[in-house]
Amino acid sequence: MSPVPAFFAGYQTRVDEVLQRLVVTERGAIERSMAYTLFAPSKRVRPVLTQLSAELCGGTATHALAAAASMELVHTASLILDDLPAMDDAALRRGRPANHLEFGEAIAILAAFGLLNLAFGTLARGYDPPLSARLSALLDDAVGDDGLIAGQAADLLATEQEIGFDLLERIHRGKTGALFNASAVAGAMTAGADADSVSALSAFAKNLGLAFQIIDDLLDVEGDPAQTGKAIRKDARKTTFVSFSGVAGAHQLAAELCQTADRALAPFGRRADRLRELSAFVAARSV
Amino acid sequence: MSPVPAFFAGYQTRVDEVLQRLVVTERGAIERSMAYTLFAPSKRVRPVLTQLSAELCGGTATHALAAAASMELVHTASLILDDLPAMDDAALRRGRPANHLEFGEAIAILAAFGLLNLAFGTLARGYDPPLSARLSALLDDAVGDDGLIAGQAADLLATEQEIGFDLLERIHRGKTGALFNASAVAGAMTAGADADSVSALSAFAKNLGLAFQIIDDLLDVEGDPAQTGKAIRKDARKTTFVSFSGVAGAHQLAAELCQTADRALAPFGRRADRLRELSAFVAARSV
Repeated sequence: MSPVPAFFAGYQTRVDEVLQRLVVTERGAIERSMAYTLFAPSKRVRPVLTQLSAELCGGTATHALAAAASMELVHTASLILDDLPAMDDAALRRGRPANHLEFGEAIAILAAFGLLNLAFGTLARGYDPPLSARLSALLDDAVGDDGLIAGQAADLLATEQEIGFDLLERIHRGKTGALFNASAVAGAMTAGADADSVSALSAFAKNLGLAFQIIDDLLDVEGDPAQTGKAIRKDARKTTFVSFSGVAGAHQLAAELCQTADRALAPFGRRADRLRELSAFVAARSV
Repeated sequence: MSPVPAFFAGYQTRVDEVLQRLVVTERGAIERSMAYTLFAPSKRVRPVLTQLSAELCGGTATHALAAAASMELVHTASLILDDLPAMDDAALRRGRPANHLEFGEAIAILAAFGLLNLAFGTLARGYDPPLSARLSALLDDAVGDDGLIAGQAADLLATEQEIGFDLLERIHRGKTGALFNASAVAGAMTAGADADSVSALSAFAKNLGLAFQIIDDLLDVEGDPAQTGKAIRKDARKTTFVSFSGVAGAHQLAAELCQTADRALAPFGRRADRLRELSAFVAARSV
């Protein structure tokens, strides 16, 4: 698997510093459980995307950090929930035993709940009220009706069923695309971006998110748990992009989605080169 | 069990109309699961408290409705989580089989997650940004560090252990007091209340919430599931106010807390009579 682009390090460090301040493990079992998955090895793709989007729109990575941290908090909550016995029943995540195996199901569920709560709290306290309210509404959309929860629910209902390509795409646009989209749009919002820039970044992020998910499906088939840090073959009962299109077809689809993502960056010219590097990294993950 | 005060009906109807618009069951399984527990018979004590607090501070019940609805959404989420096999493993809630028995654990967990998300989304969209941000921070406090999640976690860790009165009180101030407090303070905030009024209503609500929880403990021992709508004797493994102070002692403690709550209303004079009726109803629930 290819390493993350070199420029990631600074962006990762900045968001980690914010996350460390937000989740204080001395407080108790819930915070330790939150920190366990939050600070396990992670590429921080979503908060990096938030910071890059802010910079691209003339803002600063620093001003985008509260929003960036919120996206990672919500993503971590979704990982904890996905691994529960009632969901994917996965044993390994970010290279560690799944949260519920370490802390028990009850604490794991409360930790996920606490992470979502903290994400909204961080947006409420991190920005001037008008921006804070817009970011909260954006996050609500990404988590709710057509976002993470809807995607996960559709995924659960589709397990052990034949499903079509349209539903498969809708599931993964919800499970992954929605939070990628919110991560980019949130960054743009913190920079006071115009509607055209927001919409270009949204198109970039949605396609990138779907490509990312397809490559996750490929890694589930082809990956090495020592590198991916999570269990493989756990999707055997599910229709995935790989079971649907085959390994070669899924590779091609992911590559095409990354190209579509890149085309959305055209209006930004060379200023978007770091986002193109991010996209190239996503496309290369499975090679 | 005594009936709710007659004036409740109008307040209940208003918040139910808002909740019906927020949770549209045609959307899918998650929304049906959310609606199942949300619209099961409920006294709506928290959203009534929000509306009464707004009116007491010179605002309107109507302007308080989005905040009132948010409080009921979060409360419902906490009920669904509390009943899960990994938590209290309760079979009956609001007179119906517990959510996970009807929809399965995975959907129940996602529904609880969706309710918390919707609560923040409703605050983000329901008010002018400055008020919306303050209400979001208030809700974050009520759910997080010293609130619902902390209380539930402490409760889980205390099960099958001897615990002291201080910890017992802290658990229940978190599990019940925090959201009662947020419900009253949110109503006051929507009315633009001054700091003294907020602080008086906060003292009222915290003490009322703790009394409410003690009476829940009494109903767990003395209650009739046909009337309370939930399983009894489920706290047998736990230290409760009843196991700690005995039935008579718990009755007395609840009565004293209601008196303390009422004393906090003194600055409002007769204008707070409906809150006094609410307090009298709470005190009389177990008689």
